[in-house]
Amino acid sequence: MILVTVMYPAGARFDVDYYLSKHMQLVRDRWMPHGLKSTQVVKGLRKADGGAPDYQMAALLTFESLEAFKAAGKAHGKEIFADIPKFTDAQASVQINEVLSQ
Amino acid sequence: MILVTVMYPAGARFDVDYYLSKHMQLVRDRWMPHGLKSTQVVKGLRKADGGAPDYQMAALLTFESLEAFKAAGKAHGKEIFADIPKFTDAQASVQINEVLSQ
Repeated sequence: MILVTVMYPAGARFDVDYYLSKHMQLVRDRWMPHGLKSTQVVKGLRKADGGAPDYQMAALLTFESLEAFKAAGKAHGKEIFADIPKFTDAQASVQINEVLSQ
Repeated sequence: MILVTVMYPAGARFDVDYYLSKHMQLVRDRWMPHGLKSTQVVKGLRKADGGAPDYQMAALLTFESLEAFKAAGKAHGKEIFADIPKFTDAQASVQINEVLSQ
């Protein structure tokens, strides 16, 4: 299993309503047929040491395999990435991770 | 619900065996009685653009509430943090997040 972390740095415009209701819905609609198993959205509150959060928002996308994620990106990545400027100016940091334990 | 993300930057020593078998077991043993609901460990593979991952390893800790996490940290944080040098020299970045959607 693969966890794709899409993290949006703090300090930029972010339309949470659009993000949750439109963008994440688009992600699920397009990618669930391509092996996206589940999504989780989290909002950064603060660092554990009390400082400001590095990331204001993050999406955690669980795919059944790396191959599935690659195929999903190939099939619909362009449409999904083109939707991002509608809710934020932040440059998302996207990392691909292997799930070692649940 | 709260997701605490503990992310270990790439480029430092990291003993994966100790981390998974000893450290994460300690985290679960101490914090599950304090509202830790689940844990997930992921290993950074690469950035989506093909670059090296920012984080070599991350733990995602779901707590039932912010109050539970604070109480857990107060009760056992010292013991858990003291265990970190046994498996890594990396300075973990710990962020507290609110779960907006599953």
